[in-house]
Amino acid sequence: MKNLLIASTSTVYGEEYLDYLNTEMAELFKDTEEVIFIPFARPGGISHDGYTEKAAKPFQKIGKKLIGLHTFENPAEVLKNAKGAFTGGGNTFVLVSTLYRLELMQPLREAIFNGLAYMGTSAGSNICGVSMQTTNDMPIVYPPSFKTLGAISFNLNPHYLDPDPSSKHMGETRETRIAEFHSQNNIPVIGLHEGSWLRVKGDEIMLKGELNARIFEQAKEPFEIESGTILNLNSEF
Amino acid sequence: MKNLLIASTSTVYGEEYLDYLNTEMAELFKDTEEVIFIPFARPGGISHDGYTEKAAKPFQKIGKKLIGLHTFENPAEVLKNAKGAFTGGGNTFVLVSTLYRLELMQPLREAIFNGLAYMGTSAGSNICGVSMQTTNDMPIVYPPSFKTLGAISFNLNPHYLDPDPSSKHMGETRETRIAEFHSQNNIPVIGLHEGSWLRVKGDEIMLKGELNARIFEQAKEPFEIESGTILNLNSEF
Repeated sequence: MKNLLIASTSTVYGEEYLDYLNTEMAELFKDTEEVIFIPFARPGGISHDGYTEKAAKPFQKIGKKLIGLHTFENPAEVLKNAKGAFTGGGNTFVLVSTLYRLELMQPLREAIFNGLAYMGTSAGSNICGVSMQTTNDMPIVYPPSFKTLGAISFNLNPHYLDPDPSSKHMGETRETRIAEFHSQNNIPVIGLHEGSWLRVKGDEIMLKGELNARIFEQAKEPFEIESGTILNLNSEF
Repeated sequence: MKNLLIASTSTVYGEEYLDYLNTEMAELFKDTEEVIFIPFARPGGISHDGYTEKAAKPFQKIGKKLIGLHTFENPAEVLKNAKGAFTGGGNTFVLVSTLYRLELMQPLREAIFNGLAYMGTSAGSNICGVSMQTTNDMPIVYPPSFKTLGAISFNLNPHYLDPDPSSKHMGETRETRIAEFHSQNNIPVIGLHEGSWLRVKGDEIMLKGELNARIFEQAKEPFEIESGTILNLNSEF
């Protein structure tokens, strides 16, 4: 049974790293004392060790030990046997390139479909979608494919921002960018505001946190869903 | 001799499409009555015909006829013989994918190095750099390569935005994104605010418009340059 927590952001304004997810993390990882950390998105270019050290602190608060996947000789085997995994944010292109280079995309997908308790934030959430094509990140490296885990049947846009009617900036709004995605693709997209997350249990997906989310589908008007809404993986929104 | 106008944006707030570049365009294209339009970036998914129609209007104002490259049977030959070309903005991934698919990247590069008067805005400017890896666009299609024209020896970040100290959004600032680019690459980047452009004549590149631009180099502090600064293509900033 799938068991995922897919969060828009690791950090909400004015709070410590992962603090707002504290209770949800404790529930997600209740059956394991050890969680495997996937540090490959490297925010700001931080090292794998440095990132693991940072991420370990909020896990200590809930009594869990976080261990970097990069420290193992056979990471595919580690994922297969793990009871919990967390992929942190950073650059999605770097994350996806590294997962393909180390041949870990398929083992991670299989582990998730076999019930691995998985948490992702930002880039670590993007990879749960069908493709990484609705990321906000810069293409700083060239991945062999944009295809990702497909743990959910749609794509994410994390750190979603509503258009700002007072803006004088002429760059595309997030909504325009997603509309351009739908001029080329038919995968639905959920825009998750910071502070929102999806909780996936089997085929049931619930929007959690305090805010609405926005649903974008090809050739349809976008619409809002409220926190608490249940999305069914195998049907239309 | 290279002859390019590389603009951050097609449109500045409160003005009509391309209006602020009117005088510069007339000067750039003074030796031709016809300009070839490269419509492949398709902003908002607009058709090639629709985009050409839109872009033709400001060219009519300066007495030029704009003709879509997509209307020719042998576009590579058209680029070779053209005296002027304009690539409009939109999605850089779509633009680059289409240029590669139609085998036009190399012919366009050769035409530019042979003196084609070239104007780009936004995505059409991104492709003048060494790579498209500092675009702000979403990866809505998968191009065969991120390598671009290399008409200048650095990369662009168009629609550049300074960090907003009052923001409560936790997504990366533009400066953080470019720093992440430099954790993986050593190509210098110029952040061009909306309303700024580069005028390239041979090996001389001048920053024009009313605003400063921001220069980012690997392992160095970013710094500002003023309008009127001359950058030499073949040396450090």
